[in-house]
Amino acid sequence: MRASSRVLAVALVFATAAAHAADPLPSWNDGPTKQAILSFVERVTTKDGPDFVPPAERIAVFDNDGTLWSEQPGYFQFLYAMDRVRAMAKDHPEWADKYPYKAVIERDREAIAKLDSRELGELLIATHAGMTTDAFHETASAWLKTARHPRFDRPFTECVYQPMLELLRHLRSRGFKTYIVSGGGVEFIRVFAEDVYGIPPEQVIGSRIKLKYELVDGRPTLVRLPELDFLDDKEGKPVAIEHVIGRRPIACFGNSDGDLQMLQWTTIGRTPSLGVIVHHTDADREWAYDRDSHIGRLDKAWDEANERGWTVIDMKQDWRRVYPPKSR
Amino acid sequence: MRASSRVLAVALVFATAAAHAADPLPSWNDGPTKQAILSFVERVTTKDGPDFVPPAERIAVFDNDGTLWSEQPGYFQFLYAMDRVRAMAKDHPEWADKYPYKAVIERDREAIAKLDSRELGELLIATHAGMTTDAFHETASAWLKTARHPRFDRPFTECVYQPMLELLRHLRSRGFKTYIVSGGGVEFIRVFAEDVYGIPPEQVIGSRIKLKYELVDGRPTLVRLPELDFLDDKEGKPVAIEHVIGRRPIACFGNSDGDLQMLQWTTIGRTPSLGVIVHHTDADREWAYDRDSHIGRLDKAWDEANERGWTVIDMKQDWRRVYPPKSR
Repeated sequence: MRASSRVLAVALVFATAAAHAADPLPSWNDGPTKQAILSFVERVTTKDGPDFVPPAERIAVFDNDGTLWSEQPGYFQFLYAMDRVRAMAKDHPEWADKYPYKAVIERDREAIAKLDSRELGELLIATHAGMTTDAFHETASAWLKTARHPRFDRPFTECVYQPMLELLRHLRSRGFKTYIVSGGGVEFIRVFAEDVYGIPPEQVIGSRIKLKYELVDGRPTLVRLPELDFLDDKEGKPVAIEHVIGRRPIACFGNSDGDLQMLQWTTIGRTPSLGVIVHHTDADREWAYDRDSHIGRLDKAWDEANERGWTVIDMKQDWRRVYPPKSR
Repeated sequence: MRASSRVLAVALVFATAAAHAADPLPSWNDGPTKQAILSFVERVTTKDGPDFVPPAERIAVFDNDGTLWSEQPGYFQFLYAMDRVRAMAKDHPEWADKYPYKAVIERDREAIAKLDSRELGELLIATHAGMTTDAFHETASAWLKTARHPRFDRPFTECVYQPMLELLRHLRSRGFKTYIVSGGGVEFIRVFAEDVYGIPPEQVIGSRIKLKYELVDGRPTLVRLPELDFLDDKEGKPVAIEHVIGRRPIACFGNSDGDLQMLQWTTIGRTPSLGVIVHHTDADREWAYDRDSHIGRLDKAWDEANERGWTVIDMKQDWRRVYPPKSR
C-alpha cells in the first residue's frame, strides 16, 4: 500500500466512525421514516431557514402506552392495579367473593379478560385512591422496581422502545421540550418518567383523580380521592395540552385512535409540523395489532394518516432493535 | 492626593459600582426582608452547602393578583370583563334592562360594588366563554394593549411590581423555574406573562373554564364553554401545583388568604423553604389593605406568618419603588 492509499484508508475509517457517531438514531433502520423525522428536526432548527421555529415553541408531545413503552398483554398500570388488589386482599376479606376482585385474586384469566370498563375503573379506584400522593408514589415505585413483564421477564421500565429513547434525546438536544400526554395516570407515569425517559414531572400530562388538600396532624397532605377528575384521552388530549402547556405542539407521536385528536391539533393547517404514528407490526420482537385490538386500537387515526401526511412507523421494518439491553 | 490615596479612591469607586451592579434587587431597600430572600437563594444554590437544592427542584410559585401586579380598585380581569360587557352590549339588546349587565353598561358604581359572586361569575362567563381559545387570546391581548388603569393612567401591564420583576429575574438566573399559580384565568394571564414577567405559558397555572375540542370546517378548534372547570384558589392551589408541576415548590410568594394553603404546602416540615407574603401598606404609591379588604384579604395567612416563619414584605418600607418607569 502506498503512503497516499494508507492515508485514504485511515481517512475513510475515520469518516465512517464519525458518521456512525453522528447518527442520533442508531436503532432506526435507514429509510423514509427515519428520514422524515430527521429532516423535520433539521428544518425547524435551521436558523434563517424558511421553517425555523424558535426554541420556546419546539413542543413535542408523546403518548406513552404503545408509543414509548409496550401496552401488551395489558396496560402496565392495570397490571399494577391487579398486583395491588392481590397485595391488599388480606385487609379486604370481603373481596374474596366479590367481582371483579375475586377474578383478580384467583388469577382467573378468562374472567379478567371479560372485565368491562366500569369494573376496570372500580379496580383502579380501589388501588389508586384513599392514600396520600406520597404513599401512592412509594407503592408504585416499589412495584416498578420489582415487578417483571410476564412475557419478557424484565422490569416494565425496560419494556420501553430504544428507538424512541434516542428520539427523545435527539429532540431535546435540538432544543425541543418533550412532553408525555397519556391516557394513563399522571402520578403513575411520573414515578419513572424522569429516570427512564429524561422527562421531568412537570412535563407529564395524564389522566388524574381528584385530590383533597388538608392539614393532618399539622402537616400538609394531598389525599387521592376515589373520583376521576380528568380522562386524558381522545378529545381530552388537546384540551389538556391547552390547559397545561398553553401552546400548540409542532410534533406529535402516538399509536392509537386515542391520539387522533392531538395529532390533528398538532398538524392540521400548521406548517411546519410533524405527526407520527407507531404501528405495531412486529409479533416476534413485540406485538402486531391495529384495527381489531381491544388495547391501543389503530383504526381511524391510521385512515387519516394518509390524508394528513402523517408518518407511520412500521415497527418491524423501521426499528433495528425494540428494547434496550437487558439489565437484570 | 498621594498616589496611593488616588489608587484607593479609584478602587473604592469601582468597588461601589461593582456592588451596585451586583445587587440583583436594586428596587428593594436594604433590611431584613431583602436579606431573608437573598440569603435563602444563596443557601439553596451553594454547592456542597448543607441547604443545596439541585436546579430541577428549584420551583418557585407566585400568586399574580396583588403579588406580581396590583389588584385595586378591582381585579384587572374583572375590569376587562366589564369593558367587554360594554363592547358586546350592542349585540345584546336584552342586557340593557337586565342585571348585572345593566349596572355595568350604565357604569353604575354603586350597583357594581354590590355585585355578589354569582353575578360576577355570570359576567365572567358571558365575556370569557363562547369563543375559540384563539379568539379569546386576541380580544384580551387587544384590551391589554389599549386599556389604562383608572388611577395611574397607564397600561395594566405596567401596574406590575418592579421589585418582583427583579426577584423573578434573580431566581431564574440562579436556576429556579418560576411559576404563576393564580386564582385568575390561566388563558388571560398567559396573554401577557411571557412579555411582562418572562414566564412562558407552560409555567402559568390558574383557574380555567371547560374547553371543547372539535373540527370546524376541517380545522381543529378549542371552544371555551360557559362552565368553570377548576377554581385555582385556597385548597385548589396545592392541588393544581401537584396536578401540573408534580413537585412541591421550595419558594412561595402570595399576598392573601387565598395563598395560605400553597404557603403551607411549600414550607411546613420542609427545609430549606421560603414563604413570603406581600403586605399592602402603601396607600400613597399603591394601596393599603389587609384584614378587612373585600379583595385580597390578608387575615389568616398573616396570623400564620409568625408561627411559620414566613417573611412579610412591608411594601412601604421594603420597596424603593413600586412600578417600573412609565412607558406611555
